Amino acid sequence: MSQFLVQLGNAATVVEAYLTTVLAKQESEGTPPRLAEAIRHAVLGGGKRFRPFLVLHSAALFGASPEAALPAAAAIECIHCYSLVHDDLPSMDNDELRRGRPTVWKAYDEWTAILVGDALQAFAFELVGAPDTNSDARVRADLVHVLAVASGAVGMVGGQQLDLEAGKLAGQPAPTIASIMRLQAMKTGALIRAACEMGAIVGGGTPDERAALRTYGEHLGAAFQISDDLLDAEGSSAETGKATGKDAAAGKATLIGMLGIKEARSHLDHSIAAAIAALNVFGDKAEPLADAAKLMGRRDS
Amino acid sequence: MSQFLVQLGNAATVVEAYLTTVLAKQESEGTPPRLAEAIRHAVLGGGKRFRPFLVLHSAALFGASPEAALPAAAAIECIHCYSLVHDDLPSMDNDELRRGRPTVWKAYDEWTAILVGDALQAFAFELVGAPDTNSDARVRADLVHVLAVASGAVGMVGGQQLDLEAGKLAGQPAPTIASIMRLQAMKTGALIRAACEMGAIVGGGTPDERAALRTYGEHLGAAFQISDDLLDAEGSSAETGKATGKDAAAGKATLIGMLGIKEARSHLDHSIAAAIAALNVFGDKAEPLADAAKLMGRRDS
Repeated sequence: MSQFLVQLGNAATVVEAYLTTVLAKQESEGTPPRLAEAIRHAVLGGGKRFRPFLVLHSAALFGASPEAALPAAAAIECIHCYSLVHDDLPSMDNDELRRGRPTVWKAYDEWTAILVGDALQAFAFELVGAPDTNSDARVRADLVHVLAVASGAVGMVGGQQLDLEAGKLAGQPAPTIASIMRLQAMKTGALIRAACEMGAIVGGGTPDERAALRTYGEHLGAAFQISDDLLDAEGSSAETGKATGKDAAAGKATLIGMLGIKEARSHLDHSIAAAIAALNVFGDKAEPLADAAKLMGRRDS
Repeated sequence: MSQFLVQLGNAATVVEAYLTTVLAKQESEGTPPRLAEAIRHAVLGGGKRFRPFLVLHSAALFGASPEAALPAAAAIECIHCYSLVHDDLPSMDNDELRRGRPTVWKAYDEWTAILVGDALQAFAFELVGAPDTNSDARVRADLVHVLAVASGAVGMVGGQQLDLEAGKLAGQPAPTIASIMRLQAMKTGALIRAACEMGAIVGGGTPDERAALRTYGEHLGAAFQISDDLLDAEGSSAETGKATGKDAAAGKATLIGMLGIKEARSHLDHSIAAAIAALNVFGDKAEPLADAAKLMGRRDS
């Protein structure tokens, strides 16, 4: 497992270097300085860079170099970062801290935080649409399309809408296991699945290989969310470095609350096994991705 | 000039029909119902559809059918509509009414309005990136890239940032003619220019033809903004159907305020002439676009 953490760290290093470079380039082309600073605050403030890891290692299955996969990896991280900036806003989750630093709206102001998110979303599509991203325009257009569908109303944004409706609107129907799973598949699953599929697109995978990586990503996303919920329910604050029991305290419906910890663990094990099974077609080359799935069973942060 | 208004109306009709269809399709694919309703409120609530007109008629210069240009036309309108939804938010312009109807945050809530904008931006890129938008993937990827650059930190979002900084932050440098022109070129000019360039991309124009339409769009955007300011400064409320003198009352720096009405009129005439001159290479076919520029000298709404 430590080999996996090394690979995760390596992916984070290369994607952060790339993001630093391309954001500096955009700044030199005329981004207003205060906006540029707030964008750096949002993007370069740490994070595991899990989605970029998935893009890089999915692409590597087809022999694609990290360089070839970096624009797609950076693009999906920009979408992820923008979503965190908007989720933290006072009218959404009203969070003042993220990773021990003030959130963007707290460090700057609300309107700057909204614009940082808007600019980062546009930048993600600029990165994958740019002529030098890939000499094959079909690759660029496909990356855009997969990323756009995963980010939008039937994906990440739609999931956030459902999450906020459940928390903020009166008279909502009681959540069910199915409704929670759908919400999570949209809010976090869609982007994780897209990361894997985008790696296949960069690598030039066949439709079957692309489908296999979608399936892997789908089960990995489910495992990711259940392990997150378990971490919140089981973990101690000292272990996770963040507040735990937050979901229960917020009266938030989670799979753990509906199923109990034992049943949730079994769901998690099932999702991990299904994710790994989807990688069979790739043989031993898929070990980094299989390790990523296995880690979901042993997360401590 | 009435011929131009007929063509503008026709463009609005076809793009609204297209937007209605594609939004319904997205809704059927799983957009949460309340989000879908709020998106329709934002997109289908009227408007001149000036940017789609520019895409359709720029593409028509090359013989492209309206059908071929509709995804690009609808995409740029989605970007425009999302920007209005976010601009209206309490932390930005705090507007409760738009075109006589409640703004999205007022009709729903702030977080829904933020998510409507986020979803519409993703949808714009989904539309131009989709495989059936154009059989040539280079066209799709180019459309994405031009739209993303125009929408982001060096374009529309950057311009909105500068506009809000001027209005909300203490200790800002006094505006100059150059700084106002730069702000306007980013905030509204970038998208108008992109509309013209996207038409050239759909039509398969040569690099020179694409550059000519960029130049046209650049001057048209400048004319559009000056005529807007003149309308605000000169127009009566009865004529324009909206509050006038709003900029002066808000102490907002405009070119009119810096130059006086006479000098601003001369800037406007110059921009219109430069826009029309850029169309020379296209001959008589460019009449609808030339008429659009001429109209900037005679707007009453």
